[in-house]
Formats: sequence, structure tokens, C-alpha cells
Amino acid sequence: MTHHRLLDLDQLHSMGTNMYELAKRLFPIARSITGDGVRETLNILKEYLPNLQIYEQPSGSRCFDWTVPPEWKIRDAYIMDELGNKIVDWQENNLHIINYSEPVDKKLSLTELQEHLHSIPSMPDAIPYVTSYYSRTWGFCITHEQRERLTEQIYHIVIDSEFMENGSLTYADLILPGEVYQEVLISSYICHPSMANNELSGPIVAIFLMLYLQQQRNYYTYRLVLTPETIGSIVYLSHHKTYLQEHVVAGYMLSCLGDDRGYSFISSRYANNHADRITRTIMTQQHPEFTEYSWLYRGSDERQYGSPNIDLPVVAICRSPFGTYPEYHTSHDNLNMISAKGLQESLDLMIQIVHLTEYNHYYRTTTHGEPQLGKYGLYPKQTDFNGYLEKQVEVTIDLISYADGTTDLIRLSDLVGVPVHNLYPLIDRLVKLGLLERQPYRKTTRQPQ
Amino acid sequence: MTHHRLLDLDQLHSMGTNMYELAKRLFPIARSITGDGVRETLNILKEYLPNLQIYEQPSGSRCFDWTVPPEWKIRDAYIMDELGNKIVDWQENNLHIINYSEPVDKKLSLTELQEHLHSIPSMPDAIPYVTSYYSRTWGFCITHEQRERLTEQIYHIVIDSEFMENGSLTYADLILPGEVYQEVLISSYICHPSMANNELSGPIVAIFLMLYLQQQRNYYTYRLVLTPETIGSIVYLSHHKTYLQEHVVAGYMLSCLGDDRGYSFISSRYANNHADRITRTIMTQQHPEFTEYSWLYRGSDERQYGSPNIDLPVVAICRSPFGTYPEYHTSHDNLNMISAKGLQESLDLMIQIVHLTEYNHYYRTTTHGEPQLGKYGLYPKQTDFNGYLEKQVEVTIDLISYADGTTDLIRLSDLVGVPVHNLYPLIDRLVKLGLLERQPYRKTTRQPQ
Amino acid sequence: MTHHRLLDLDQLHSMGTNMYELAKRLFPIARSITGDGVRETLNILKEYLPNLQIYEQPSGSRCFDWTVPPEWKIRDAYIMDELGNKIVDWQENNLHIINYSEPVDKKLSLTELQEHLHSIPSMPDAIPYVTSYYSRTWGFCITHEQRERLTEQIYHIVIDSEFMENGSLTYADLILPGEVYQEVLISSYICHPSMANNELSGPIVAIFLMLYLQQQRNYYTYRLVLTPETIGSIVYLSHHKTYLQEHVVAGYMLSCLGDDRGYSFISSRYANNHADRITRTIMTQQHPEFTEYSWLYRGSDERQYGSPNIDLPVVAICRSPFGTYPEYHTSHDNLNMISAKGLQESLDLMIQIVHLTEYNHYYRTTTHGEPQLGKYGLYPKQTDFNGYLEKQVEVTIDLISYADGTTDLIRLSDLVGVPVHNLYPLIDRLVKLGLLERQPYRKTTRQPQ
Repeated sequence: MTHHRLLDLDQLHSMGTNMYELAKRLFPIARSITGDGVRETLNILKEYLPNLQIYEQPSGSRCFDWTVPPEWKIRDAYIMDELGNKIVDWQENNLHIINYSEPVDKKLSLTELQEHLHSIPSMPDAIPYVTSYYSRTWGFCITHEQRERLTEQIYHIVIDSEFMENGSLTYADLILPGEVYQEVLISSYICHPSMANNELSGPIVAIFLMLYLQQQRNYYTYRLVLTPETIGSIVYLSHHKTYLQEHVVAGYMLSCLGDDRGYSFISSRYANNHADRITRTIMTQQHPEFTEYSWLYRGSDERQYGSPNIDLPVVAICRSPFGTYPEYHTSHDNLNMISAKGLQESLDLMIQIVHLTEYNHYYRTTTHGEPQLGKYGLYPKQTDFNGYLEKQVEVTIDLISYADGTTDLIRLSDLVGVPVHNLYPLIDRLVKLGLLERQPYRKTTRQPQ
Repeated sequence: MTHHRLLDLDQLHSMGTNMYELAKRLFPIARSITGDGVRETLNILKEYLPNLQIYEQPSGSRCFDWTVPPEWKIRDAYIMDELGNKIVDWQENNLHIINYSEPVDKKLSLTELQEHLHSIPSMPDAIPYVTSYYSRTWGFCITHEQRERLTEQIYHIVIDSEFMENGSLTYADLILPGEVYQEVLISSYICHPSMANNELSGPIVAIFLMLYLQQQRNYYTYRLVLTPETIGSIVYLSHHKTYLQEHVVAGYMLSCLGDDRGYSFISSRYANNHADRITRTIMTQQHPEFTEYSWLYRGSDERQYGSPNIDLPVVAICRSPFGTYPEYHTSHDNLNMISAKGLQESLDLMIQIVHLTEYNHYYRTTTHGEPQLGKYGLYPKQTDFNGYLEKQVEVTIDLISYADGTTDLIRLSDLVGVPVHNLYPLIDRLVKLGLLERQPYRKTTRQPQ
Repeated sequence: MTHHRLLDLDQLHSMGTNMYELAKRLFPIARSITGDGVRETLNILKEYLPNLQIYEQPSGSRCFDWTVPPEWKIRDAYIMDELGNKIVDWQENNLHIINYSEPVDKKLSLTELQEHLHSIPSMPDAIPYVTSYYSRTWGFCITHEQRERLTEQIYHIVIDSEFMENGSLTYADLILPGEVYQEVLISSYICHPSMANNELSGPIVAIFLMLYLQQQRNYYTYRLVLTPETIGSIVYLSHHKTYLQEHVVAGYMLSCLGDDRGYSFISSRYANNHADRITRTIMTQQHPEFTEYSWLYRGSDERQYGSPNIDLPVVAICRSPFGTYPEYHTSHDNLNMISAKGLQESLDLMIQIVHLTEYNHYYRTTTHGEPQLGKYGLYPKQTDFNGYLEKQVEVTIDLISYADGTTDLIRLSDLVGVPVHNLYPLIDRLVKLGLLERQPYRKTTRQPQ
């Protein structure tokens, strides 16, 4: 059935290094939920996955309850003091202005300027990340140290931005066909400017996961979706909702996966769908110290994928998730926060997760009563004194005896007391012999849109 | 949607006083399951609720498995000693004879009389309350002190009662229309003679609850039912069973609500219907020391409303319930046992319960994906550094995200961790904005019978 | 409804003695999964149950995934030393050869012979029981003591056996009609040679249970099935699967019931079917120290009856089950291991189990609201002071109030807090009065095949 080969440590290590190189390349780009930053990012990713499809959704169009905002173009922004020094310069760090700031060119006293400044007193050397996508304003984000040093004078404020009503929002997807049309969704977002963990780690692990999957023979079709957060997934769902509802068997939204900290996932509304169970099983085995956050803790596109009238079986997979680590949404979330090793371990985790996704079907015994194991070479030639069935035969016969079509592999693993990955070869053998059959998870056979 | 105003303390206090006055007026009446005592009681209650409808069910008629007994008329009863003193006189206390005693006029020795006397050795100064509705007998109930003082002599026994085969059983109801035909049932009984807590407190709280509801704009229709216990609710159900099964969303049988002791309710068969959950939620919040008794403890008309082939979602609401307090079914259950304050607090509890009943719908988000909260004024204008959504927005968005049509307000309250009454204004606002819709609880739209 | 009379101690004692006598008679017979040993055994049992039907299934025929093996005929087998002494003689103990050994007549050195010897070092005085039904081989089973005494010499080996391709496999059944076509299955196996507990105790208790049932008026039809283990139940199911699936309400596979040790049962796949619940209830009451083994511990024909595509509600009932006691599958499992008392107690247990099976219906109250108990003589004539309903009335009214068609007797017993056997007379009375009705457990009315 499935023919996945897991990667060895050398391969993973080499992919980790490549992932970190990609992070360095993407880091400086000034992304937002619209604009050329997104386009430049997606074009670089397309070098890795040439089949990545890039789409534009016009500003002003309605998607569900939302209206796509005007495209935001940002060319330059600075605060200049009376001596003509650019004391705050967007060209140096694109966190320096509120994302989606409106254009401004005026001279202000320090008091007037203060109303448009943002800093973090408790993290005096960090520049905060602030956005205002749907309410027009402008402002600068600086370190609290710098803010405290500002003196009373007239400052020249320039934000050379533009709202393009005839612009658009950019997003991308890629469909990797499998044996069946049913899909596994891999999603991340590409809308934060220079931040490493809470931006780049997600799409980078997603890209390398797809590179891995391209080299396997997959049972499921895999769909990679890269959108600006929230509005982007709303746009995507407005085009593909029904198809996705009919085909997605599990979805994984990737975020904050580049650091070296513990693992976690954010479960769905009732914490019991296919993706929840698969993720919980793998994390329990691979990273037993993991944290499971409830749906109340959701924060990224899983909010849309899992909302009541969408209801895709999606979980968010993180190391330290958004909002829980101090560097979150500041300039401290930079390339020092992530590592090749951190990315590589997350990729390995995702490979384990898709591996179980490929195997976690409901199985059904094909025979009436037990099969005659001996004729398949699955039974010892003679039964010895007090000789209860040996362990291997016992697992085989127990697995078959519980495979009544109501038990998926995770449940079977619980029932027979053997970890899922130890059952993969046995499942392969029994399916090949015709003694087990996979129950179709979804009956839909429509072709992808 | 609902426009209930809760009462302030002054209003409640004034209603408490009025309730106690009514109790004093009703206390002396010689009620039974049939007869003029019931009629007199209902006519007094009709002064408060002029729309109260009073009905007569003929003696001898069949209602389900039961036959309505002959009406019992009682004019006088006494035991006279040889000196001509009425040593036991029904006119002094109507508990002195077995309710439904047959007529008798004879002279008996003390030994013969003893077989017809009832007293309580462990409560020597209390007159017990004894009935024999369906098996003809007669007897006197006296204090054990008096019984011990009786001397050997010939007693003259008179019970001037009558069984009227062409009589009837009297009961009443009142329907207060709401926005929908679905109903909330409020029930109590009116068949005990001079007892205060286990008789008068129930109908009195019910009457004043209806007076309160008459001044509100209610979503549900409210049905008040006042019947003699057991046979009365059997009669009522025999006329209205199908309509009630189709329309009643929750019912509250009120009893023993005038004392100052703790609160309790008797849950339905499986303790999980709409009325169970509402009552449990309010009691947990308002009176966390409350007692929940199982269906095994049922004892009044909830026995009929909740029986297998009737299955109305009804609970019995009490302070100390029948059978648990020492004064129960004796002359000690008198006007000293109840108080204006006790009645007033019970009324307040019932108002909280009907309030939650009005709100406890299943709700469903109307949008696909999250709504764009900003355009409804439900979102802060810009998201700040590390700035997770503020508490109010978080509750809004969490409530919407769980409102998938399978969650009623009580469940939503549990999921988002906010008490139900704190969610009422938010629910009102989201429904008004069209972001939430109530799922119909019952589809029936037939008009009341 | 049911008219079972339980046996008194004298009757049970006498049946215990008779059971042990039967065991002595059956013990020496050389049984296997095919052949004359099975036929001889079944013919003796037919003396007890003349209606026992005996069938032959041809060798080579396909039954589900299995092929019936050639019939094995064994006439003689021995190992003779150089002095002409038969040092191992199958005529002395039929465990001495591997069951289904192929014919052999050759002379071997001790070293060559050793490869065909089986013994148990840890039980040096026991002969092990070894089989090789589906893989051709031969061998002798001896005590380890004897094995250690063997000297270097040339041994003459003779196994005078034969595989008859035109032979057959023998099995039997008996149908004892009840009021309805729905069935209770009683099963055991008849394929082990001289072993007492793990062979004879099962069919013997089954036979005497049928003798008991023949003298009762039964609600259910009872089906006794006696087959060689595994292949025999496969053969039987291949003929009767659909009918059994439609009619069997509970089944009991009997094994290892003759010793004096504790009781146990092996539950079905999910441990919650009709037979599981009945057995658990009786064992909890009669033998509270019993052990419940999970489906993972199954080992006899319950494996086939309860397998996914068969799914009969069957449990295995044992004292110490197969594999847990030291004598299991050795010559120590002999007539000393079982006793009249052990067999008699097991019969008594089975009678309790079928008794509850007869009563464990879903019940439904026939009235709307409570019935008027007084008119059925089920209510005290007058209610006394503080007089809550007396215990007997309380149980009656509680039972009726929970009998909503979703509760079987076991659940009703839990709900009202009264052991099942104390409810049997009440159930009989209420059903006879028409106040309760049994809900049909299965609707099928087809006649038995």
C-alpha cells in the first residue's frame, strides 16, 4: 500500500541545513497580508516546488463575511531628527512601522509623535510587531530604550505607503496526487515581515515536507496551502470549501517550528478528529513531554479551517506556539531563535505524522471466523506443550480479531498493546494477503478542483 | 429576544410579604383531592390571576389507568367523651381525621377506638396527616400526648362525611402566551389541608412567578397547572398528553419552598434533560450547597410528568423536599415553618431558572469561517505587541467558534469558562447582529389546546 | 412467563456424581479433531440426550477460509528398545504421540530419536500434549524423567496411523425448542484425548445443563453444539452462520469447569454484549472473587463465534481457564484434577446464568403515568404519617418508573438497587398483570434450520 521510506539522520541533517539557508534568504523580505513581499516570498518557494501555483484575489472582493483589503505598497519610512539623521529607518528593520500604515509626511513635536510610537517597556531592546489591517492609522515601532532617549524637538515623519484599491492578495497552493483523491492538507502562512520562528519556520517545514512526499508513493493526495494568515485562509476556503469538506481526511497547520523548545499541538473543537488522534499518538510516542492546547488556544489559520460551518479536521502543530514564548511578535524572533536542528527535528516529526496518516485506516477482516493462518505461513508448524501462541502470532491473530471495521490503526494499536509503527509491516503483509481490507474513509471520488 | 428584567431586592421583599399574607389566608381551608376545599383555594388564587381556568372532572370517569374517586364532602367530625366534651374536634384542626374518612356515628370503648387512632410516639405533640383515598376506612389523628391521656370509657364517634358519586375533581390551569408555542410548564398541587410548607408554598410561589412573567415579554409560552396531587396530574395529562409532549421544553414542579433551609431538586429519570441541566446550572451558581436527589427520590407530580410513556422534561424544585424534614406531614408543618423571606428567596430562584430557560437555546454561527468582527465594532482597532486578543474579544470569538448548533448556552458557558448570566448580553448582541442564530428546540407550531 | 425451577442441593449433588461417572467413562477414549474417538464420545453422549444429532463433514471440503483435513486413524504406536520392550506405548496413554502423527516404522539412534521427542523439563513427571494438525510430522511425548533415562542404542519406532482423504470430521448438535425461535447457544469441544478438565468438563456440564433444561418450560430455544475445537466450530458456522446471527441472543462456550478453583469468564470483543452482562452479573453475585479475562485472552471456540464477521454474542465460561493452571495440556490434567463437586458447582452456575438469560429482557411500562397500584393489590391501604412508601411498594413503583424500554433487567436491578434474582417474582407478577411488557429482543421468527 504505502511505500514511504523514512529519512535517515544524514538526510535529515542535510535537509535541516538547507532549510536554515532558505530561512536566511527569506528573512529580510517585507511581507504583509498583501503586496510584493508575499509575491517575492512565494516566487522563492516556487524555486523549490516548481508546481506551486500562485493566485491573486482582487482587493475589494467579498469572501464569506470578509472584504479583501486594498493592497498595501510600502516604499520607505523613517523618522528624521532636526539634524537630518534618520533615527528610525524602515529600511533597516521592517518591523519599524505599523503594518498597513497609511502614508504620512509631516513634522511633529515629540509629544505629538509619542501618540504614534509603540515599544515594550518590559523588553526594552525589542521592537514590537504591530498591525492595523482593517482600521486606518499609522505608527512607528521602536525599542523602549530608543524611545526613552528621544528628546524634545521637531521630527520629520515620512511613511511612503500606498493603498491600491485595484491591487490584490496573493496566495499559493500545490496538489501532489496520491492513489486516491482524498486529501491531507498541509498549511502555513506567509504574511509576517522579518520574523523567523513565527513566520518562516512554518512554510519552510511545509516546503521540505512536500519535497519529501514528492519522492514517496503516497496513498493520499497532499495539498499544500500557503496564504496570508486569516484573510488568506478565508479567501482560500471561499473558493474550495465544499471540495475540501468532501475530501480532506486530516490537515496540519504548521507554525513556530524552528526553535529548540518542546512540542505542542492545538486540538480541534472537540479534540477527537482524525488529525487530533494521529498527532496525539505520534507526539505521545516521539515527544511524550508535549503539550496539547485546547481549541480555546487556537490563533492561526486553524481558527478558520476548524470553524463551525467549515469543520475541516485540522490541528495546528508547533513547538512553542504563538503567544507562549517571550520573543513572539518582536524583533527578537529572528534568525538566532531558530536553527537547522530545530527545523530538521520538526520535519522529522511531520514525516512521522504523515506516515501514520497514510496508515490510519479502519480495517476489516475479510474472512468469516479466523483465517487458517498456517496456509499463509503465519502460524508455527506445531503447537507445543503449554505452548500458548507465540507473541508474533498472538499479535497477528489479535489484530485480525479486532479489525471489525470500527477500529482504526490507532485503536487497534491500543487494543493489542503494540505501538503503531511496529504494526506497519504487519498491516502491509495482511493487506497484501487479502486478510485485511481498508475501509474507505470517505467515499468521494471527485477529481480535485 | 428576551426582555426579562430581574426584580430588585425591594420588589422581591414586597412580593415575599404578599406571599406570606396569601399563605395565612389559605392555611385554614380543609382541602382534599376533591371537594369544596380545592374550589375555595382555586377561587382565592383566581383573584391574583383572573385568567386562571378552573375545571371539573366527574367522579367515576376513567383517566389512563385511574378512576376519579367520588367527591368527598366533610361537614363535621369529633370524638365526644361521656361527659359530652368534644375531646377531638375536626373544626379545630382539619388534620384530626383521616382524609377521605367514611361517615360514622357510633359509640366505642377505648379499646375499640384505639384501632382507629393515629399518633406519632416520637413526636408526641404533633398530629399526623393520614389519608385513605382509595380504600374505605375512617379514623382520627391526634397527638400522642393526648392519646396517652385517654381513659377507659365509652366514646361517641361522629364523622359527618359523604361520598358523592356524582361529584367531581377540581383543577386549574393558565396559559400565558409567549413568542412561540413551545411551553414551559409550572406545576404545583392544591390538595393538602392545613399544612404550610408541603402545600401552600408551592402554589404560592407558582402564582407569584406567573405574576412576574405577566409583566415580561417572554419567548416561551408559560403554562401553570394546579391540580390535586397524583390523581390530578393524571387527569390533566389524560387531556393534554400529546400536546404537552410536543410543546413542553422544560417543566418545574414546585413544592416545599417556604422554609429557610437549603435548596434541592429531584432530577428526571436520567438526570440529563433540559430542565435538569438548567436547574443544576442555576443552583450551582446561586446555591452551590444545593442537593440533587435522584429520580428514586421523586414523590409528587414529577412522578407522573416524568413517567416512561409521558416523558415530559420536568424536575421537582424544593428547599427541603418532602419526607426529609421532621415536620413533614404533621401539624408542625404550619405557618411558623414558612416565612416571607423563605418564599421570596424561592421566587427569586425560580426567576433565575426561567431566565436561563429563555436563553438556553442551541446556537449556530451564521458565517463561514470567523466573521470579520471589526466591521461590527467587536474588534480592537489594532493588535498590539504580544497583544493577544483582549478578554472580551476572546469570549466573543470563542463563543462564536463553539456555536455549531450542537451546543446550548449551558455548554457554551462551560466551554468558554464564563457563567451563563454574564453571556446573556453578548448573546443578545450577536443574535441581533445576525452572527448567531437560535436553533429551533422543537419544530411544532400547533396552537395550544 | 418462565417456569424454571432451580435445583436443590440434593439434586445437584446427585447430578455431580453422575457427571463424574460419565467423565470416567469418556476419559480413556483417544480423541482427535477427526476420527473414531470423536464418534465414540458423541455416541456415549447420545445415550444421555437421544435427540443429539451427529453429522459428518467430508475431509477436503472448504469451510470459510479452512479446508477440513483428512481423517486421522490411529491404531497403535510405540518405541521399542533393543531388548524388545515397548518403553513408550500409546496403548497405555494416548498422549504419548503427537496428535495427527504421520505413520512411521523405522529404527533410529537415540540422537535421531531425540529430534522427535517432547517433554517438559520443569514438570519432569508429566507427558505433554502436542498436536500438528495441518503440518505433517510425527513425534512422541514422554515424561522428562523417562527421557533422561534413555540410553544410547537403536530404537524401533512404530506409529501405525493413516490419513484418510475420504474420511470426515464429526460433530453434533441438539435443539431444544422454547416459546420463541430466538436461541441461547451452549457450546463445547470434544477433540482432546485423555484430559479431564480441559476436555471432558465442558461437554459434560453442557450435557447435564441440557438435561436440566429439558425438564423446564423455556422461553428461549436452546442449541447445544459439540464440535472439535476451531475447525469444528468453523465447519458448524459455515452451515449455520446467518441463522445463528439472526437468532442467538446469548451464547456460552463451556471449558475447564471440573476443578475446584475460582470462576472466570472471557468476555467478548468489547465486553458489553448480552452474554457478557448476564455472566458478569451472576458471577458478581455468586462468585464475587471471579476473574474477567479480556478478549485478548480467548483461546477456544469463542474465538470463532465472536470473530468480526460472525459476531455472535458469546462468552467463554471457565473455572481456571486454559493456559492458567499448571496441569493444562499435560497428563496431569486427569481424573484427579476434577471432582463431582467441581462439576456440580459449575452446573449450578450455568443454571443461574440461563435463568437470568430467560429473564433479562427489556421491559416497558404499559400505562401512561403510574398505574393505580391499589386496584392490583400492590399498594398499602392507607398512607401513614411520615409514611413514605414501604420498601416493597417502593421497589415496585421504581421498577415500573424505569421500565421505559431502554432498560433490561440487569439495568433495572442496578437502578432500583435490588439483586436480579430478587426481582424475578415481581417481574412475573407485573407481566402477568399486564403492567409490564417484554420488548422483543430480536424480531426474527424464522424456524430453526
